[in-house]
Amino acid sequence: MKNLLGTNVITQIGILVHDIEKTSQVYADFFGVDKPEAIVTDTIEKAQTEYRGEPSVARAKLAFLDMGSLQIELIEPDENPSTWREHLDQHGEGVHHIAFQIEGMKEKIQVLERANMPLVQKGEYEGGRYAYIDSVKDLKVMIELLENDK
Amino acid sequence: MKNLLGTNVITQIGILVHDIEKTSQVYADFFGVDKPEAIVTDTIEKAQTEYRGEPSVARAKLAFLDMGSLQIELIEPDENPSTWREHLDQHGEGVHHIAFQIEGMKEKIQVLERANMPLVQKGEYEGGRYAYIDSVKDLKVMIELLENDK
Repeated sequence: MKNLLGTNVITQIGILVHDIEKTSQVYADFFGVDKPEAIVTDTIEKAQTEYRGEPSVARAKLAFLDMGSLQIELIEPDENPSTWREHLDQHGEGVHHIAFQIEGMKEKIQVLERANMPLVQKGEYEGGRYAYIDSVKDLKVMIELLENDK
Repeated sequence: MKNLLGTNVITQIGILVHDIEKTSQVYADFFGVDKPEAIVTDTIEKAQTEYRGEPSVARAKLAFLDMGSLQIELIEPDENPSTWREHLDQHGEGVHHIAFQIEGMKEKIQVLERANMPLVQKGEYEGGRYAYIDSVKDLKVMIELLENDK
């Protein structure tokens, strides 16, 4: 039997929030760790963000908490079009995706599109790239592919 | 700094579904593993299920998939009152909770209630017990405490 992603190891749970500073502090207090410093995703020039096939200037603030073998990623999107903003507007705060570390981004996106799980958003970050896949109908949760350069 | 749970290791992601057989098969095909056998939670006599402070005859079908260091738990609730049924009716299919393995269930529930995160549902299973905590306002996701007998 073939694993479509080549992995079954969940590396992140992404959670949308309205106020990343406030929720980061709540998480830090709850789990007894330092409040993580939020970072901001790159501008479109660097990130080459595409949302539903169109370039988007959308950016988000991200904060990461180590939770055993995976991370919780808190995400506060800006107002521009993105899967983050769309999901936050439609569903409110809460889980947005689970992430997997993969190899061969283009090929994996094609495999998933052939399985009727289309690409929703993609972009670049320092040292790698991401893609959100609409797997909700099948898996009941969105998945994110992460590929880091070696 | 004190960790309220005594752990930060996420051991399960619980996902509500309408049809556990169908979604189990989709997960099995997607990740290239055998379809997990669904189990049914115990009757109220054995599970001593309490939902929002009242006994409940609610039961659910559960199926577990190993995903690296944690499990995905698929949950198909029956029609009786439970956090599963309530969440499925209100939000549709999707992530219901993240779970942590803890020690000292009664004490942990008290600590969380003092932090304004009330108990929503609890019950027993063969070899242990669970409690769902309303942490949604603070953590943007519900948490489940799991305590296994040694």
